[in-house]
Amino acid sequence: MAYTLLVRHCGQLLTLAGGPTDRPLAGAAMSNWRIITDGYVACEEGQIVAVGPMQELDVKQVTAGTAIIEGHGRVVMPGLVECHTHLVFGGNRAHEFQRKLQGEAYLDILASGGGILSTVRATRAASEEELLVNAMHQLAGFRHYGITTVEAKSGYGLDRETELRLVRVAGTAGHCQEARVVRTFLGAHVVPPEFKGRAADYLEFLATEVLPALRGVTEFVDVFCEEGAFSVEEARAYLKKAKEQGFRLKIHAEQLHDLGGCEMAAELGATSIDHCDYLTPEAAARIAQCTQGQTVAVLLPLVPLFLRQERYAPGRQFIDAGLPVAISTDFNPGSCPSKNLWLALSVACLKMGLTPLEALAAVTLNAAWAIGQEQECGSLEPGKRADILLLDVPMYEEIPYWLGENPVREVIIGGVRVERPEQ
Amino acid sequence: MAYTLLVRHCGQLLTLAGGPTDRPLAGAAMSNWRIITDGYVACEEGQIVAVGPMQELDVKQVTAGTAIIEGHGRVVMPGLVECHTHLVFGGNRAHEFQRKLQGEAYLDILASGGGILSTVRATRAASEEELLVNAMHQLAGFRHYGITTVEAKSGYGLDRETELRLVRVAGTAGHCQEARVVRTFLGAHVVPPEFKGRAADYLEFLATEVLPALRGVTEFVDVFCEEGAFSVEEARAYLKKAKEQGFRLKIHAEQLHDLGGCEMAAELGATSIDHCDYLTPEAAARIAQCTQGQTVAVLLPLVPLFLRQERYAPGRQFIDAGLPVAISTDFNPGSCPSKNLWLALSVACLKMGLTPLEALAAVTLNAAWAIGQEQECGSLEPGKRADILLLDVPMYEEIPYWLGENPVREVIIGGVRVERPEQ
Ligand SMILES: [Zn+2]
Ligand SMILES: [Zn+2]
Repeated sequence: MAYTLLVRHCGQLLTLAGGPTDRPLAGAAMSNWRIITDGYVACEEGQIVAVGPMQELDVKQVTAGTAIIEGHGRVVMPGLVECHTHLVFGGNRAHEFQRKLQGEAYLDILASGGGILSTVRATRAASEEELLVNAMHQLAGFRHYGITTVEAKSGYGLDRETELRLVRVAGTAGHCQEARVVRTFLGAHVVPPEFKGRAADYLEFLATEVLPALRGVTEFVDVFCEEGAFSVEEARAYLKKAKEQGFRLKIHAEQLHDLGGCEMAAELGATSIDHCDYLTPEAAARIAQCTQGQTVAVLLPLVPLFLRQERYAPGRQFIDAGLPVAISTDFNPGSCPSKNLWLALSVACLKMGLTPLEALAAVTLNAAWAIGQEQECGSLEPGKRADILLLDVPMYEEIPYWLGENPVREVIIGGVRVERPEQ
Repeated sequence: MAYTLLVRHCGQLLTLAGGPTDRPLAGAAMSNWRIITDGYVACEEGQIVAVGPMQELDVKQVTAGTAIIEGHGRVVMPGLVECHTHLVFGGNRAHEFQRKLQGEAYLDILASGGGILSTVRATRAASEEELLVNAMHQLAGFRHYGITTVEAKSGYGLDRETELRLVRVAGTAGHCQEARVVRTFLGAHVVPPEFKGRAADYLEFLATEVLPALRGVTEFVDVFCEEGAFSVEEARAYLKKAKEQGFRLKIHAEQLHDLGGCEMAAELGATSIDHCDYLTPEAAARIAQCTQGQTVAVLLPLVPLFLRQERYAPGRQFIDAGLPVAISTDFNPGSCPSKNLWLALSVACLKMGLTPLEALAAVTLNAAWAIGQEQECGSLEPGKRADILLLDVPMYEEIPYWLGENPVREVIIGGVRVERPEQ
């Protein structure tokens, strides 16, 4: 069969291929993946079928029906995978941001009805259509940055009906545009007003009344383990029940304190442990060993920046300790209203010590592992979905260098050109 | 005469008008400018002729020949003014950035031929056409962010011929596209190899051999006052000579050390003092008083972020001390390869304590003052150029909130629609 799409004369083709296939990239493998100079990617019906240097291109497969995109010597790479977002919510918290800048303390904002519970109120009050319109708007923004797969957590409903609505909206939004949406249930975000002081009861309610309705719908269950949210013991009991029901596990932990949530979740076989700003390199090494490199640490460098904290996860040491690392924006209305994953990539280099090659692996293949999509996306390899970016730079070193800029020239999802932001 | 362009039903029209007209905004005036709800801007032949609430629109002036842009309830504001860039240079330093991330010291990079002198070599080696193509590419990026006026410094030539070429290229680039370019001579960037150890001789050479050729060409003369560049005394002597030749003055000072360069330049009547990360609030208060609020402090928040330093200019205290503040990217290949002035605006809020209203004044009207363009741009007022942005947000608080994102929906320069990035 002839190629339906050919991207050719790619100055640097960042394949992300060549590492182990049974686990995410870690240690030296995070920078030892294959870059092809003057390369091509060939696709058939939305799948990549061949990747290689131009001189190995099988020209018999290139016919009049082959759509051709010229790389013009630029960087071509897999679509970005955004592995941690709170995509669906009502309202925003721009007004509260202004209050924070003027020096008002978070607890005062919370006491006056602000903070996460204000988003919960706005989300509960929003119609399903409103939530869908908002989510579609955000997904358009993500696509603009070349993000072709997006994880989406619930967690601003905190009651059965609204949480199920958020999961539904994320699914619909995934079907109504090109980027793929992977859903995570984060009903265990904080304790809702209705369960005030009864965190364990709330988790029991989620495990018995909500999770059963989500089997076969969301692949992942997540919990926020932090002071003011859920303790390590509460989170452990909840994640165990989720695991028994067949869900894969995630956790928000070690964001503001070193409570031990990451290690607990890793012991339960969590697919990802997220935030990790207070996770020590020693604990990271233990996690890498006990999980045999299967658990990905999802680092969120824009969150400390936006919260005006100066504690960033020691990503460099995590990688050196053998812990696989992914990077995400944590897009959400409270602690990081940014969809600019390229900025997160640069800040991960600047503040967490990642090299450009490691950071690129962290927003592609390792991010795909963090949401169980490693068979589908995250690298340019035969059999994977044709999610491909054509960038405006000639070499990968320039990607983190042009701070805060969007290098995307063209976005291809499933073999279809969907975005050409710079033209 | 009928309106040629009308932007109507602007949800919030950020006019930046209403403050003093004889000096930049300072103190409370930085946030007390006029916002019109449901407003309009009317233009004739590239100039703004009327601004006001919709109910005051003179409908007789709206004819079949009036181009109409619907604000759809969104924010409309003046085009951004980028008041400090090193626009024209050869090559880039992405490779060096990678070395820095891997822990190599700046002095080692310098010793191996890297650092600013590598850009000087690449710039001297580039043809005028290459430099123009690069500058045009960067200006396209600036326009994409809604930047409609750009200051451009020379400073990577460090010899007569190349410096004059850089000034020429900036001028040509300004004429070949819509954004306005204002030129500054920064021959006194560092001491070139040819004058090694003879800083005073180099400055004397610039003052006698180069400045005379630039009279009537560049309005501003700038100098980099810092350890490893020029001392306060050297900079003072040079700026005095530039002033005698009729140039307006700028200085790079207090970036890495508190040497007193800002105060020296302010005493000479400098239009702007730039960087100021080590300028104390006490010195800022003295400067505000001695200059009667005429000198603008241009703050560059992305530079410490990119250089992995944690010392940011105390912008909040500068404003409280009565010193007018502007914000810029400092776009350049070494210490800040970013054209994302919106990111700089957000980081100024997060790291320098500016409120959203102050930060907006700092990238518009005060930035115009910093480059002597206050009569031309920086606010939406009758008589000013029709440089207008239509944003994708309904209220100004959201501008710094969506971290790192480009809120620009439409860019109008001199009454002409030039960019519609999101469509
Ligand atoms: Zn999160
Ligand atoms: Zn500069």
